[in-house]
This record gives sequence, C-alpha cells and structure tokens, in this order.
Amino acid sequence: MDTTARAEDTTDRDLAYNVFARSCPSRSTLEHVTGRWGALTLGALHDSTFRFNELRRRVDGVSEKMLSQTLHALERDGLVHRDARPTNPPRVDYRLTPLGEQIAGHLLALIHFVEGSQDEVIEAQRRYDDLGGR
Amino acid sequence: MDTTARAEDTTDRDLAYNVFARSCPSRSTLEHVTGRWGALTLGALHDSTFRFNELRRRVDGVSEKMLSQTLHALERDGLVHRDARPTNPPRVDYRLTPLGEQIAGHLLALIHFVEGSQDEVIEAQRRYDDLGGR
Repeated sequence: MDTTARAEDTTDRDLAYNVFARSCPSRSTLEHVTGRWGALTLGALHDSTFRFNELRRRVDGVSEKMLSQTLHALERDGLVHRDARPTNPPRVDYRLTPLGEQIAGHLLALIHFVEGSQDEVIEAQRRYDDLGGR
Repeated sequence: MDTTARAEDTTDRDLAYNVFARSCPSRSTLEHVTGRWGALTLGALHDSTFRFNELRRRVDGVSEKMLSQTLHALERDGLVHRDARPTNPPRVDYRLTPLGEQIAGHLLALIHFVEGSQDEVIEAQRRYDDLGGR
C-alpha cells in the first residue's frame, strides 16, 4: 500500500494495513468477506462442506452468477478451497481454508449477535418511524 | 418473520431470526452493518464521536450521499444516535448507541483480523493468479 494511506491511520496501532484508507488492499478483502453474499457464504461454509447447489440453497436468495463470483473472489483470497474430483459426473466441493475458518468465526459471532438483537432493532425502527423519521 | 423462514433454519440453535433466510428481517440488519460503508462507519464511530464531515474524512472515499444514507439506516436500526444541538451554526454529532457499540466491537474484531491477515491474502492471490485463475 502507499505511504499516504499509512499516514492517514489515526489509531495508535502500528498497522501495515488499514481498511479506512481507500487505497489499502485490506479494504477489498473486507468487502469480499462482508459483501452482500460473502458473509453468508463464509458463514454457511463454517458449518459444513458444500457442493455448489447445496450452498445455493443454504444461502437463500443468491443467484447462480452471484454465488459463482463470490466463491471465485474468496478462493482467490485464499479463504475458500475448491475441491474438484475427476469422477463422472465431476464432483466439486467447497470448504474453508484455515484462514477462511478464522474469518468465518468472526463473521458468525457478528451474525449470531445481529440475530439475537433483532427484536431490539425492530423496536428501534418502530420508534423511529413513529416519529416520522426526522 | 414467516414460519417458512423459521423452518428453513438447519442449525441446531433455537432461533427466532435467521440471516440465511431471505425473508428474515435480520438479514437486512446484517446488510446494514456489513454493507460497503456500514462496517467502516460503525468501526470509525467505535473509537470516537464524529461530526458528519469528520466522519467523511475518516471513512476515506465515501460520498456525502452514501454516508448520509448509511447513517440514516443505522440511526433507524437504533445503532447510531444523532445528536443535534440548536447552536448557531447548528452542531450535529454522531455516536454509537449501546447496541451499536456491541455490534461495532464485533466488526472491529473482524476488521483487525482482516488487516492482520492481509499479507497472507496477498500471497494467496499471487499463487492463484500465477496458476492463471483456474
């Protein structure tokens, strides 16, 4: 990353990478793992190995094209391993790499917290809408 | 949420909400907190209260319009508090609510892990590209 991006880091941590700087490559990685389908794909794979169509059913609502793009990006980042076996018909399984497991662990902690807070979020939305937004 | 979405939950947890079901309201919340600008906005506010333009500088690359939309969604979800003081000129500060602090804590754990893993990600990308994708 460039030194401008480094200098913009205002925290007291001595970081090589900083997602708050737009030119830092770690921002792209964060976008892959938190993107619309990235987070759900990694979260699903934390629990199990999946074939493509199984994964598509688990990540309810994802299109074939978007799941394919998501898996490619995560495979290139070294978070997902694509295991293709030369059987007839060919069998392709997707599973997390050790690094992918760790990132998925952080994501699942966030996902479970969001699910557990949803009643509170809905109550906040109701209050906000009752006030006519603002 | 509807009972179909409940029935689709294949984990062994007894969940009222399930982000893997497309109709579950917790999926929208997850999208707000992990979206392109939501994660960075919450991460930035974890460290400090910000005025709008300060926050815009911290979340490098966000447009005025996108930051405004992001803050509105997070305010409606009860994660960000907008504190407008009737001074002249008016002063508006943004800070996290207690629920927002907890979600931002999970996000920062993920962000710091992603930043700390970036060398490994770059090495994986290099290997992938050297093989000509696949």
